[in-house]
Amino acid sequence: MDNVLERCRIAPSLDGGASELFLPLTFFDMFWVELHPVQRLFFYEFPCSKTHFIEKIIPKLKSSLALSLKYFPPFAGNFVYPSNTSNLPQIQYKTGDSVSVTFAETNDDFNYFIGNQAREADKFYKFLPQLPPTIQFSESRLIPILAVQVTLFSGCGISVGLTNHHVVGDASTTVNFIKAWASICKFGVDAQTLFYLPLYDRCLIKDPNGKLAQKYWNELRRKVRATFIIEEAKIKQLKNVIVQSKGYNNSSSHLSTFTVVCGYVWSCLAKSGAAIGEKDGDEYFIVAADFRARLDPPLPPNYFGNCIGPCFAISSRAKLIGHEGFSIAAELIGDAIYKRFFNCGEGGVLRGAEDWPTQINSLDWSRALGTAGSPRFDVYDADFGWGKPKKFESVSIDADGSMSICKSRDCDKDLEIGLSLPKMKMDVFANVFSDGLDSL
Amino acid sequence: MDNVLERCRIAPSLDGGASELFLPLTFFDMFWVELHPVQRLFFYEFPCSKTHFIEKIIPKLKSSLALSLKYFPPFAGNFVYPSNTSNLPQIQYKTGDSVSVTFAETNDDFNYFIGNQAREADKFYKFLPQLPPTIQFSESRLIPILAVQVTLFSGCGISVGLTNHHVVGDASTTVNFIKAWASICKFGVDAQTLFYLPLYDRCLIKDPNGKLAQKYWNELRRKVRATFIIEEAKIKQLKNVIVQSKGYNNSSSHLSTFTVVCGYVWSCLAKSGAAIGEKDGDEYFIVAADFRARLDPPLPPNYFGNCIGPCFAISSRAKLIGHEGFSIAAELIGDAIYKRFFNCGEGGVLRGAEDWPTQINSLDWSRALGTAGSPRFDVYDADFGWGKPKKFESVSIDADGSMSICKSRDCDKDLEIGLSLPKMKMDVFANVFSDGLDSL
Repeated sequence: MDNVLERCRIAPSLDGGASELFLPLTFFDMFWVELHPVQRLFFYEFPCSKTHFIEKIIPKLKSSLALSLKYFPPFAGNFVYPSNTSNLPQIQYKTGDSVSVTFAETNDDFNYFIGNQAREADKFYKFLPQLPPTIQFSESRLIPILAVQVTLFSGCGISVGLTNHHVVGDASTTVNFIKAWASICKFGVDAQTLFYLPLYDRCLIKDPNGKLAQKYWNELRRKVRATFIIEEAKIKQLKNVIVQSKGYNNSSSHLSTFTVVCGYVWSCLAKSGAAIGEKDGDEYFIVAADFRARLDPPLPPNYFGNCIGPCFAISSRAKLIGHEGFSIAAELIGDAIYKRFFNCGEGGVLRGAEDWPTQINSLDWSRALGTAGSPRFDVYDADFGWGKPKKFESVSIDADGSMSICKSRDCDKDLEIGLSLPKMKMDVFANVFSDGLDSL
Repeated sequence: MDNVLERCRIAPSLDGGASELFLPLTFFDMFWVELHPVQRLFFYEFPCSKTHFIEKIIPKLKSSLALSLKYFPPFAGNFVYPSNTSNLPQIQYKTGDSVSVTFAETNDDFNYFIGNQAREADKFYKFLPQLPPTIQFSESRLIPILAVQVTLFSGCGISVGLTNHHVVGDASTTVNFIKAWASICKFGVDAQTLFYLPLYDRCLIKDPNGKLAQKYWNELRRKVRATFIIEEAKIKQLKNVIVQSKGYNNSSSHLSTFTVVCGYVWSCLAKSGAAIGEKDGDEYFIVAADFRARLDPPLPPNYFGNCIGPCFAISSRAKLIGHEGFSIAAELIGDAIYKRFFNCGEGGVLRGAEDWPTQINSLDWSRALGTAGSPRFDVYDADFGWGKPKKFESVSIDADGSMSICKSRDCDKDLEIGLSLPKMKMDVFANVFSDGLDSL
């Protein structure tokens, strides 16, 4: 059985090391600010008892890690992400910073992991640490750079797993650090001659025109969220546009407040993408539809759990940005809902559900707009005794490119739409959106 | 200045509540296993002093949360992800489980956040909690379901932020829970008549053919990693194929071990995608190239930090899977490297770098293969005193669809390639890869 033997924090040896180090981000570093952590895992065949591991190996790994961190203090530090994004992020090490280290043992089969054959990807994560939680201060978030886990496969071997933020350095930098740690551990001395000493001089990177790092940072931080209200009168006008459009067939489409509002946002977004020069291609809309009332037999509304499934619409960008763009968008979404719920034939509303994961995984998500929430939701009803909320935000739309949708705060026939977009695209969208409604 | 006033854990009131609850995942739930957490934020205009907040509001929020969790215990529980993926994941609540709750205060401008105008997306995260870390046991990982943060904007208002795993339920379920909490808080009583009581009966969801949840789970867990060795002799043969191919022009391409190996893997992967019925379209290859030696002046190899940038190759799937697929792939990658480093003209190797983030964000990543590592890296050199590693794994390629590349363990002229793919695709790839090398 798996077992944590020890959790500890290892700080750089102070003897001769830096007491603090601030590294600004170059444009090469700026690239990696948002990337998932990098995880590397080394398996060593080394038959070793638990006693030997605890009494000899762990102390040696700790002392050698402390010595190697002396030369590589950023790995013990944090990535500092400023709250005020007029400031630039940086990497910071201060005396007292340390690396989270876990020592564990497992009864898993060592030989399974060291083969070249296909092995379940999931099974490796137990040998890798998670980065410690981000710490939120008023001026900044501190995001830990590195965590380490060393696991004993009793009598067989040892794994060394490292999880690090990519912003600290690329594979060349990280592998050099790992080798430095390994060498000091192997030779049992603080021998800086065993490895390349790292070079921290940021001035060596010439930033073309001197502002590429700032430009990259601007790109990163310029995602903004905004809320758009569509009033009841405008929703009625949008419905009229559809009913009067030449291709409209009321027996094969689903015309609703939801479809016209989604269609309107989808077409405005496509127009905004075109206006800022995003490349042409197909655009996707994915309705996250509530199936509770659609199942046979229907579920009660208080069923606890997930009961939403996708309806897919696809269109070329060209069609969505044309004069008929809104009608086409709304009708495609209406058709998708109609086919899913009202004309589903054999298999009912779950027809094709076995392929949903594949369909979703094969989508180009950079060109897809999904929905979060529903026009039926009155989130403004959540009153803790302080009156109705002044504002609701579906913050996680940042991560998945969805539009949030709910009843508006001030009139429950109006709808509130939330979007999170790059600043430039949002500016264009806001104009396209309001101009389009004004011209109805 | 921002300030944490209290961190605590709130458990469901035990009075009349369940002592434990296990919910199997339906196929509707299975969909959300891998999704990022959902984050919702409510802003209330409620001029309230810090004293009032601490003495009145916090105790009331705590007791009402405990009462509402009694009816919604899964929100206090964990998502249980089994280590042995022959078992199914489930949601589990046991007596003793609780929700992590943070109370904080801020001096930020309340009015900035409650507007509809475009506001910096980043600025909202300080009002939202992170989920507590996953706990790794031998049999499973426990992933917390919910965390709450309530923030006082002194004299102005209060925000209530919730971060939850989507696997517990959709917006309908979560909003019902939030409203239940709000109602109990507002009316100060344990009044279950105030909201829909949740219904936990999983049998209400009829799984078509009775195995859709299992099928979705199989899809999720069937990602596998595998290692492929390309021996020196085969690398030479691959180079020969290129030199003898009709389109080859040695003055405008970069023929190297790296380009032929990447080209070979890229074409094999395209063939594997075609073989399992992935839709046709463009395929992308992104070299993460080390710029240290290429900058003017060059950086020393021990420069600490990131110094890698992209070289982009693009091809239609059709070309990569044809008879000349490998040559085309290798030459496209060679051309991209040649243009980047050897024929870069004005602006040098950083020409166009201002557009790199846009290019990378607009890629269809489901069709892109990147590189992690380098044939120059001898990761097997990392010896802690236990001999060279028996095996190295670049685990984070799971997350970004890269191929890892390094010197092989047993012969440093051979190369080791790591891939992480769905099981079905990996099986096909392994055959395509070895058949192709055999036929050289």
